This record gives sequence, C-alpha cells and structure tokens, in this order.
Amino acid sequence: MSTGTNDTTGYTVTPIAFTDAEFDRITFNGDGLVGAIVQDASDSAVLMFAWMNSESLRRTLDTGRTWFWSRSRQEYWCKGETSGDRQYVRSVHYDCDGDALLIEVDQEGAGACHTGHRTCFYRSFGDTTSDR
Amino acid sequence: MSTGTNDTTGYTVTPIAFTDAEFDRITFNGDGLVGAIVQDASDSAVLMFAWMNSESLRRTLDTGRTWFWSRSRQEYWCKGETSGDRQYVRSVHYDCDGDALLIEVDQEGAGACHTGHRTCFYRSFGDTTSDR
Repeated sequence: MSTGTNDTTGYTVTPIAFTDAEFDRITFNGDGLVGAIVQDASDSAVLMFAWMNSESLRRTLDTGRTWFWSRSRQEYWCKGETSGDRQYVRSVHYDCDGDALLIEVDQEGAGACHTGHRTCFYRSFGDTTSDR
Repeated sequence: MSTGTNDTTGYTVTPIAFTDAEFDRITFNGDGLVGAIVQDASDSAVLMFAWMNSESLRRTLDTGRTWFWSRSRQEYWCKGETSGDRQYVRSVHYDCDGDALLIEVDQEGAGACHTGHRTCFYRSFGDTTSDR
C-alpha cells in the first residue's frame, strides 16, 4: 500500500516512513514486546492498550493499520479485520525510554472495544454509574 | 488526606473511594504489575506510561496522587516528589480485561517527562522535526 490510497471504506491508508535508527530506539521487553497505547486522533480519547512485537510494529508502520501480537493466541492480529472496527494510523510516537508506543488513529466503526464500547476504558473506580 | 484538601501548591487532592469488588477486577501480571497510562485531564494529552503494583494502585486511589513501582530501583515512587512535577488524580479507569489503567490527572509544573518535555511521547516515527 502507498500513501493516499483508500481502502473500500473510504479511510485514507497512510504508511509511515521511518529509519532503522528510529526503529532501534524501541526497547522490546524480555518477551520481545512493547506496549502500545491507541488514541483517537479526532478527540484524543484513549481507546485501548495492546502489545506489539518487532514485526507487528513494522507492519503497523508499513501498512498504516494497527497490528498487534496476541500473547494468548500467539499470533498477529490486524485490528478490525474480523470486527470491521479498523484503525487507520496517523502517527506513532515513542516515549523517552523507548519502551512504550502512542499510536494516533482514525477509528472506524463503533469503536475499539470487543464489548461494543467505543473505548476499552469504559469503567472507572468509584463511579457507581460505570457499566459493569 | 481527605477530599477537598489542598496541598501547598493549591491543587485539590481528591482520594477516590473504591470497593474491594472493583479492585478485584484488576489483573496484575506475572510480576505483580499493571500498566498505567497517564493522561492530562485538561486536554487529553497522553503524558507517560509506567507500572503499578497492588500497593501503588491502592496508594494512588487513597492519596489522589500517582504512585508507581520502579522495576529498576525496586521501590515505590510518588510522581513529582523530587521534581515537583506532581500529578493530582481526577479519575482512574481500567480496561475491559482489567490489565491496563488509564489515569486522568492535573499535571503540575513543566510536565511529566524527566527530559523536561511535557509528555514522554515527544518523538514520533518519520517526523524529522522530532526532538532527538
């Protein structure tokens, strides 16, 4: 895929060019993983947190879609391929230690959470109105 | 500390009431830790990512300040106690799997990052203007 192409849903798919030097700044943990925070580019809502290994980070940058590594299933997953709730990457930030990622996306569909909520963080401590 | 008290900086310190049932929804990993995303309540900027164990999460809820567990130093740290860049907790969310936290804070001082940047995520892939 190249910059500016659209998939069938009309979202713009934008791969991110990067250098090996940039990639080398990422520190993967003992399991070869780095945590990825996904934030909605439209209003900065935090949507979800999941894990990437080196290959899923490369796929994310190369394809402009979010790719994660499922620790439970031991497989790659491209967010939304099953549900249709795809994420189109707008930027990929990394923190001062290089051991966390912040990915800004355009979120397609109802949201990021498999429960049907827009964000996985739909509950909060002490909030008796929180959805249980 | 109790709700509504101010510390010397004028920020309101607000402990969060919670139930054991809520606390039990949090899943700590094999090292006894859960990842915590810290977000600025004023504009939703993601400021940092760090780790909490059970006791640091309890302290965070009880004191209304962010407490983390330093894996490298093997000790608790209350954000800003040394730097002055304290975080005053406004809400603590947890995700659908209970294995990630999202903490909304009022950030005091220059910001959250030890480098002097407001956010730890000040660099992004492919951004040649990123501060190196």
